[in-house]
Amino acid sequence: MEERTEIRLSGSGGQGLILAGIVLAEAAILDGKNAVQSQSYGPEARGGASRAEVVISDGDIDYPKVTRPKVLLALTEQAFNRFKDSVADDGIIILDSSIEKDDTPREIIQLPIIETAKNEIGKGMVANMVALGVIVELTKVVTKQAAEKAISNRVPKGTEDLNLKAFHAGCNLAEKRV
Amino acid sequence: MEERTEIRLSGSGGQGLILAGIVLAEAAILDGKNAVQSQSYGPEARGGASRAEVVISDGDIDYPKVTRPKVLLALTEQAFNRFKDSVADDGIIILDSSIEKDDTPREIIQLPIIETAKNEIGKGMVANMVALGVIVELTKVVTKQAAEKAISNRVPKGTEDLNLKAFHAGCNLAEKRV
Repeated sequence: MEERTEIRLSGSGGQGLILAGIVLAEAAILDGKNAVQSQSYGPEARGGASRAEVVISDGDIDYPKVTRPKVLLALTEQAFNRFKDSVADDGIIILDSSIEKDDTPREIIQLPIIETAKNEIGKGMVANMVALGVIVELTKVVTKQAAEKAISNRVPKGTEDLNLKAFHAGCNLAEKRV
Repeated sequence: MEERTEIRLSGSGGQGLILAGIVLAEAAILDGKNAVQSQSYGPEARGGASRAEVVISDGDIDYPKVTRPKVLLALTEQAFNRFKDSVADDGIIILDSSIEKDDTPREIIQLPIIETAKNEIGKGMVANMVALGVIVELTKVVTKQAAEKAISNRVPKGTEDLNLKAFHAGCNLAEKRV
């Protein structure tokens, strides 16, 4: 059977979620799968909210929109509240520790993503790569090798090491948790 | 009636078409519309082909995939051959002058996009912004003001002027043609 995985990355503008989505999609290709990566912009984009979506499949992807994500990353409370109910029954929510979780009937994995980017890496702006490491480690939706290669391909020249370091910090965060 | 415009930007990897798509989508938002921007990756991505798609609408966008683009940008012959038949009957194909056009029954507008980036701006890598200027000038799908603001928001810091210059060179190319 063809496996289709929907992933939604949500937070606020400036958190680099589109780049994280592009890297995830490219990693899936490097793993030999198909992927569609998209951003929807609407009235909420004007309020500073941001989301990027990725569909990864072994087969063709006819419907590229994410409707029941298996994985929801939420880096802001606004994003968490908006998207938590969309998650598939067997899906998981990866939530930044700065956000108070509630009784949403889904598995919530809470990790200090933004804090790790700021304190361990020294750059809050690489929270997107920390988040990517968490997602890859927890879900294995792409291989770590493919993710590393996609990061090197896609981040601005000169920032490869910084972004890879943030990615590995995310992997470690998740590994300790598992 | 709600107007929906589908735009497909095609060429090869490294031509910055994803960034051009993101800028176009953000410009549409600044104009008060809705937009979905997506990339599909499949076997062809491994061969170096690249495409980015944008749907712009006054209303909600339920189906985000581009099927009958009103505008096709093709910066490589491979992309032109692959996508020319998908263009809507009243659509246009914007084709780089380096590619030989054929008897495709669609309006083809051929302009020296890559050459302008290289010779006039001095950086081949800004062909994406030259192409964006051509598209905006020819189709008015977003306003020039919104496109300029979206460029400033989205290109790497320190390259705003270079990218804006390339955008305006594209507008001029198209203006002379019209």
